[in-house]
Amino acid sequence: MTSRFFNAPEPPYYAVIFSSLLSGEDADGYDAMHNHIYEIAVTQPGYLGLETTRDEEGFGITVVYYDSPQAIENWGKNSDHKVAQNKGRESWYQGYRIRIAKVERESSFDR
Amino acid sequence: MTSRFFNAPEPPYYAVIFSSLLSGEDADGYDAMHNHIYEIAVTQPGYLGLETTRDEEGFGITVVYYDSPQAIENWGKNSDHKVAQNKGRESWYQGYRIRIAKVERESSFDR
Repeated sequence: MTSRFFNAPEPPYYAVIFSSLLSGEDADGYDAMHNHIYEIAVTQPGYLGLETTRDEEGFGITVVYYDSPQAIENWGKNSDHKVAQNKGRESWYQGYRIRIAKVERESSFDR
Repeated sequence: MTSRFFNAPEPPYYAVIFSSLLSGEDADGYDAMHNHIYEIAVTQPGYLGLETTRDEEGFGITVVYYDSPQAIENWGKNSDHKVAQNKGRESWYQGYRIRIAKVERESSFDR
């Protein structure tokens, strides 16, 4: 299995902390767009990696890491991404929070 | 149901992004300590709120928010917390990442 962890460079780097609660509406549409957006996201300049998880209530947290605030801003303006954002508010999400943060320190543990 | 979202004050504030993969060892011990630590954590000076989720593979992300880096440092040194950290490395976790970040911007959506 691919590691679920993002193995980061030395800080500082930048994080988009995206927490969301799915509405359950249009689950197939959500899955298709999620896969499409994911494929584009990982090719964006400045993308470093991500960690993601979602529980059986539909509450998920995805943290996407970038090398600069500019990379985050550019991705926010991507046209496919904007379509997905609009669909998300119309149908897929009950709610979400997006937080942009600068990572200053990191520690890790692996067996 | 209590909201799964942390409703934040205006940035800046601080985040501890904790991602972890459970080993499956000593699940009862983990649950008991998790509840104990959670009860203490939410009473710490500077604690603002948290969001947490974990999927069926045992991969979880918890983001805990504080009003200052000092609050995070103090909680890291809490004696009960230190006991839990040691047990976590000995038994409960296959691996984890801890990232300390300064939240600079936020946006939110709710139906």
